[in-house]
Amino acid sequence: MRIARSVRLLDPYVPGEQPSSARIVKLNTNENPYPPSPACAKALKEFDPGRLRRYPNPASASLRSAIAKRFGTTRDRVFVGNGSDEILALAAKAFVENGEKIGSLDPSYSLYKTLAAIRGVEWTGPGAGGAKPAPGTSLFLWTNPNAPTGVLAKKEDIAAFAKKFRGVVIVDEAYADFARWNTMDLAVAEDNDNIIVMRTFSKSYSLAGLRVGFCVGPKDLIGALDKVKDSYNVDALAQTLAEAAFKDRAWHRKTVAKVVKTRKAFAKALGKRGWDVLPSDANFVFAKPPSPQRADSTFEELRRRGIFVRYFPGKLTGDRLRITIGTDGEMSSLLDALDSIAAKR
Amino acid sequence: MRIARSVRLLDPYVPGEQPSSARIVKLNTNENPYPPSPACAKALKEFDPGRLRRYPNPASASLRSAIAKRFGTTRDRVFVGNGSDEILALAAKAFVENGEKIGSLDPSYSLYKTLAAIRGVEWTGPGAGGAKPAPGTSLFLWTNPNAPTGVLAKKEDIAAFAKKFRGVVIVDEAYADFARWNTMDLAVAEDNDNIIVMRTFSKSYSLAGLRVGFCVGPKDLIGALDKVKDSYNVDALAQTLAEAAFKDRAWHRKTVAKVVKTRKAFAKALGKRGWDVLPSDANFVFAKPPSPQRADSTFEELRRRGIFVRYFPGKLTGDRLRITIGTDGEMSSLLDALDSIAAKR
Repeated sequence: MRIARSVRLLDPYVPGEQPSSARIVKLNTNENPYPPSPACAKALKEFDPGRLRRYPNPASASLRSAIAKRFGTTRDRVFVGNGSDEILALAAKAFVENGEKIGSLDPSYSLYKTLAAIRGVEWTGPGAGGAKPAPGTSLFLWTNPNAPTGVLAKKEDIAAFAKKFRGVVIVDEAYADFARWNTMDLAVAEDNDNIIVMRTFSKSYSLAGLRVGFCVGPKDLIGALDKVKDSYNVDALAQTLAEAAFKDRAWHRKTVAKVVKTRKAFAKALGKRGWDVLPSDANFVFAKPPSPQRADSTFEELRRRGIFVRYFPGKLTGDRLRITIGTDGEMSSLLDALDSIAAKR
Repeated sequence: MRIARSVRLLDPYVPGEQPSSARIVKLNTNENPYPPSPACAKALKEFDPGRLRRYPNPASASLRSAIAKRFGTTRDRVFVGNGSDEILALAAKAFVENGEKIGSLDPSYSLYKTLAAIRGVEWTGPGAGGAKPAPGTSLFLWTNPNAPTGVLAKKEDIAAFAKKFRGVVIVDEAYADFARWNTMDLAVAEDNDNIIVMRTFSKSYSLAGLRVGFCVGPKDLIGALDKVKDSYNVDALAQTLAEAAFKDRAWHRKTVAKVVKTRKAFAKALGKRGWDVLPSDANFVFAKPPSPQRADSTFEELRRRGIFVRYFPGKLTGDRLRITIGTDGEMSSLLDALDSIAAKR
């Protein structure tokens, strides 16, 4: 057979829909409602297209330096990837032997199970009590704040977990800029030997279209990622624009603060309508409609009204909707739609 | 141990140097000396940075359609990757089981050996006589024109090879736009079940900085690549700019013709100086200096003069230099330098 068995059997990851209509209220893939930094727009306009005939810097060296400086560490402890997704795929190569397992919280980012299947190894949830990974796990992906719940774990719990673990822990902090705290200082610590903290430009920097993620961790682990990456994994435009966005801290702070403010008001408004909203530290909420309203039918009814949110079927997630925080106007449209759906009953 | 054994033992691929000085005559990584199409520059200037807050089209659908149309096939037989390098890494996942082998011509693109090592499988050269891959090979990478030689194989030979082979053949046509013929019609043929033809925007389209490659092949094999790729593997800017460049056929033809013309003149000029130049159908030549001049020392002497070419040590390649075709002016500078090196003896 020409296609590898694990791939033939693979149930592919299904990303959220990307409708092309501009009239859709799109609250389904945790995109930022605000545009990227004006510094990024300026870098785009000023980019010399003639530069594109040359290969990009293979190591994204300038961006790595900027990231290292920000977090008070050195460039050899920073890796830049073609989105966090690429970093995850590389980690599955670099830190996992055949026959070992990839673990994560459950529920969590649903891509992790597909990642293990593509790598041809078993996925496993957290061990009994969630305090220790299952035996044979060599890579554990701890999303914090978690997705799709939005719930933020304590730094001490992650540190204690890593200390007991022989493998590598990647703390996937895709949403950490919207959270009350993060674990970057665990990654930067001198005595850290198995914690990698991963961030993305897709959410808080409004650059999902650009595909840039990064991670910080021990030198030998970062070196292993460098060994298995493609020679030129991040293109020249992406390196330049991500760096421009990264350096505009004022814009980043301002837009993140707006999203957090809207999230708080929206969670309160949902609560008033009888929804059960998990405490969120991300740019989305995971919420359960008041009985007898159901998550799946509400998802469909919103969809018919041109409002896209995300529904994950299954025992652990099927009674809730994951709703991205958009602008105040978008959240009002959603609340109006929910009121009209409730009134119809 | 935290790093997988195959990765610990890995001898990483070393890409050609990317010096930042503009004064270097850079003929070492087969980049195009001419800028990308003005249509591509225009698309860059007109790109709305606000679009970047959204995820890109996950399938690069518009670009795939344009490619399918050009080659008279359907979109489900086209794949677009973050450079050809990504396609190769995905193929090593999708078409190779543990314990199988990845084969290629020898010498060939030196990345292939690293690719097999990263995948944790054995690399093998072509079987006896080069007519049949070694037993246990499930993926064969046939670079045509080959690198670093520049030599073009016959289409019939590739077709005959594929017919005898149970695995997948990827014809890596990175340089095919500079060649007298190519094998795209083998990929597009209805009865083809194991040939994938791969191209890149890095060379003939002058977009090495952008990281876009594509391939055409049987629907089930393309589907397998889709299953193992990252959700959003090609960024929104890269999709847009590559499509703009792809559609400007006049610019493509004109710049390719200029490179081919310069290659012919340069090969002749080297020949006059006693060099043995392999017949090249690519945007580089692979040439041996006249005895007693040596390739390695000539490489070093050129480097000291600010002219970068590529030297691959080893039994099969160590007596030659691979020289990228630049502008006529750059080739004159190189010839002047070679004359001055020869005169010094």
